[in-house]
Amino acid sequence: MMFNNHNIRVSPTASIGKNVRIGDDTVIFDNVVIEDNVTIAHNCIIGEPLNEYYSNPDYINPVTVIGTHSLIRSHAVIYAGNILGENVSTGHRVNLRENNTIGHDTVLGTCADIQCDITIGNYCRIYNSVTIAPLTKIGNFVSIYAFVVLTNDPYPPSNDLIGCSILDYTQIAAHSTILPGVIVGKNCLIGAGSVVHNHIPDYSLASGNPAKLIMDIRRFVVLGKGRPYPWMHRFERGMPWENIGYEKWMNSGNNAD
Amino acid sequence: MMFNNHNIRVSPTASIGKNVRIGDDTVIFDNVVIEDNVTIAHNCIIGEPLNEYYSNPDYINPVTVIGTHSLIRSHAVIYAGNILGENVSTGHRVNLRENNTIGHDTVLGTCADIQCDITIGNYCRIYNSVTIAPLTKIGNFVSIYAFVVLTNDPYPPSNDLIGCSILDYTQIAAHSTILPGVIVGKNCLIGAGSVVHNHIPDYSLASGNPAKLIMDIRRFVVLGKGRPYPWMHRFERGMPWENIGYEKWMNSGNNAD
Amino acid sequence: MMFNNHNIRVSPTASIGKNVRIGDDTVIFDNVVIEDNVTIAHNCIIGEPLNEYYSNPDYINPVTVIGTHSLIRSHAVIYAGNILGENVSTGHRVNLRENNTIGHDTVLGTCADIQCDITIGNYCRIYNSVTIAPLTKIGNFVSIYAFVVLTNDPYPPSNDLIGCSILDYTQIAAHSTILPGVIVGKNCLIGAGSVVHNHIPDYSLASGNPAKLIMDIRRFVVLGKGRPYPWMHRFERGMPWENIGYEKWMNSGNNAD
Repeated sequence: MMFNNHNIRVSPTASIGKNVRIGDDTVIFDNVVIEDNVTIAHNCIIGEPLNEYYSNPDYINPVTVIGTHSLIRSHAVIYAGNILGENVSTGHRVNLRENNTIGHDTVLGTCADIQCDITIGNYCRIYNSVTIAPLTKIGNFVSIYAFVVLTNDPYPPSNDLIGCSILDYTQIAAHSTILPGVIVGKNCLIGAGSVVHNHIPDYSLASGNPAKLIMDIRRFVVLGKGRPYPWMHRFERGMPWENIGYEKWMNSGNNAD
Repeated sequence: MMFNNHNIRVSPTASIGKNVRIGDDTVIFDNVVIEDNVTIAHNCIIGEPLNEYYSNPDYINPVTVIGTHSLIRSHAVIYAGNILGENVSTGHRVNLRENNTIGHDTVLGTCADIQCDITIGNYCRIYNSVTIAPLTKIGNFVSIYAFVVLTNDPYPPSNDLIGCSILDYTQIAAHSTILPGVIVGKNCLIGAGSVVHNHIPDYSLASGNPAKLIMDIRRFVVLGKGRPYPWMHRFERGMPWENIGYEKWMNSGNNAD
Repeated sequence: MMFNNHNIRVSPTASIGKNVRIGDDTVIFDNVVIEDNVTIAHNCIIGEPLNEYYSNPDYINPVTVIGTHSLIRSHAVIYAGNILGENVSTGHRVNLRENNTIGHDTVLGTCADIQCDITIGNYCRIYNSVTIAPLTKIGNFVSIYAFVVLTNDPYPPSNDLIGCSILDYTQIAAHSTILPGVIVGKNCLIGAGSVVHNHIPDYSLASGNPAKLIMDIRRFVVLGKGRPYPWMHRFERGMPWENIGYEKWMNSGNNAD
């Protein structure tokens, strides 16, 4: 009983693909493209107009794309100007401001707040309530856990915003803060509750407030578990190397570098 | 004018008790049991189907129970498979994923994110935006303040998830992070902004990042206030010992141990 | 297509000004005053009744005022008893409990949780998910960044609540926690991820967990940028000194002290 075509409003300029399901009480604004096989749940707003809408009678809504097979859960607000790749899924109440590019097979958690002018790669996991400031760049296979904030203003309030960069395969544990302009390299693990002031080299384990480099993550040992990082050799759920293994996948020409 | 029976959708397989009020724009899915005297406000989703719903045409929604006299505030999303005891109340926009058991007389704050396979006891206070990872166990009379995260993945991403346990009467102050598998004993106070790596014995005051044991909480003195912990002797609002006192209540056979 | 007068419910005792736009699926409760030129987006609840509403048949909703030219974005819940000045704007899903006074030209971010009995001044910027406990007082021109929590209970749970005070021009960076009763002076900068236990004198840069005084903010130098604080001399977007400069504005009799 989720899809009753009840109280749905779709702009005549929106394009709706085949096998699309739209939940009740959802609104699809002008110039939204919903590709085939997308599911949008209850009470979402897709293509929310930008500020200018409220004052400019000639306002034209930027194009918004929801990629094929994506699933947008209830109460999401996705502004105009977002381009979501295929098979993106979101939790409830996500907030995506304008001009973001979200790669394919990426998951955005409940209440994630993705501000504007942000690039997020493929196969990322952005958990609940993560807040990503404008101008951030996130690579592929990155996970960012609950309540992490990626900031962009070095001496607030200012106009000298500089986004963070989080490179491929990196994991940022819950409740961490990444300061403006910081580059966290590939294959890092940032411990929970860290405040990261400085660039972090590839393959680092860093933690603390302020965060300090603890060791090369490849030397990190868990009792009875061996060396868990890089993680791609031991974790494959939802990843493109699922069922074949990371090494075989890489050797098939998928070198992410 | 809150309850107008306007734009409400209730599954024919839902069971609605006596004196139940359902706010406008709310949806009640299959196999939800709303007990007597429950109030559900505007725009809630009760019994949200699990993932399989989207792909399996034979999907059957697990039973969901909202206990008698409970109050669910607006924009809540409660998945199928939650069992809420009597007199539970929630803030707005709470998110309860599947298979949780919430004890009676417990309060869940605005935007609290209770993930799945979680047990929360009776008379708990879970404040706004608290995030509780799967497999967590929370005792009775526990308060967890704003933005606390209880985690479960010791080397993310992994499949070796291990929930935290927070035992009876413990208070976890705002913005703390409890690391996977940590057991916080009974009658503890964890200071604001702590990151807790290790088990915490009963009656501890612990604080900091990383959290350190400060002292036995029974020795903690506040100028002009004496020894505020254990707190049950000085605070009774909403507790079962309200108006009779904790000692008398305990002596009447309510020993929580 | 945002304003279709669709599924809107407005109490007969609400007062709606001229040129007011109300989004679909929005509810305006008893005794709400919407001043002229206000925009309220989709699916908001304005004047949400207090707890007593559920049990007292003679309940009267306190007056709520949304000041002229304000913009309330979608899914906001604003309780009865809030007084918002002119030109306030909010993000999506803000939560304002009862009895707050919000000054003019102030911005409240997405999911900000403003509890009760709070005063916020003019020209403040309260970013996303900021949580402000009851009894807090915030001056003018204050910015509080994502996920900051202002607390009020010195030994939880207690009835001895004491709000924080954040004085004019101060900036509190992301993910900080301000402990109960702390006074942060004028023109301070609190670094990201700080936990502030003690009062902070005017013109301080403080940071860390626990927060320590680093220096007089007026001596803080950024390479190639000089001395960025006090910030009013270099930042004017949205401020009353926009286009004229802070000094000229102050000399015109606007001394905020």
